[in-house]
Amino acid sequence: MNERTHRSACPIATALDVLGDRWTLVVIRDIFMGKKRYQEFLNGPERITTNILAQRLKYLEDTELVIKALYQEHPPRYEYALSDKGKALAPVLSSLWDWSQVWEMGKKKAPPCPF
Amino acid sequence: MNERTHRSACPIATALDVLGDRWTLVVIRDIFMGKKRYQEFLNGPERITTNILAQRLKYLEDTELVIKALYQEHPPRYEYALSDKGKALAPVLSSLWDWSQVWEMGKKKAPPCPF
Repeated sequence: MNERTHRSACPIATALDVLGDRWTLVVIRDIFMGKKRYQEFLNGPERITTNILAQRLKYLEDTELVIKALYQEHPPRYEYALSDKGKALAPVLSSLWDWSQVWEMGKKKAPPCPF
Repeated sequence: MNERTHRSACPIATALDVLGDRWTLVVIRDIFMGKKRYQEFLNGPERITTNILAQRLKYLEDTELVIKALYQEHPPRYEYALSDKGKALAPVLSSLWDWSQVWEMGKKKAPPCPF
């Protein structure tokens, strides 16, 4: 539970206060897929910019969705992993996957989600 | 299936191309809750502005998530209903509800989602 103000007491609006943008769940998807490091996120097919990526990683840490750990001291380099709060987003990713496969990508039935 | 360009072939990024903002799913939630008319959406607890609401309703129509129907001719007034594509978002709302109840609102277990 965090202390930012929310628009309303509705759980759905509250979830969107945290997750409602084009990039947050894309970076979380990457970590689910096994990516850990800055350069790996940069290399994704969405071509996230360094600017947005740095800002999203900071945001994900602030909202306790990811945990950052130093893996190299000189120069300092970090790896990112999902917290339990971040891991608990698997059903959200999976429901977006299913909906998109059928309603945006024209599949009759969604293939199984990898998460 | 629509013809807007997507950032990548990933179904999750594609879903977020359509749904990844703070308001789209809030208006869809309202329609799931039985709201149909402009003034009803305006009266929600999130205090959406007329500006954003008008823009979101147009967007929801353009993306075929909602269907608009005239219910009064002078002056013209419209009602909004979910299309099949919009109704298919129930699992997305439900997964956001569950996650938020536990991880943002501090509940041990999420009460059942109304959708």
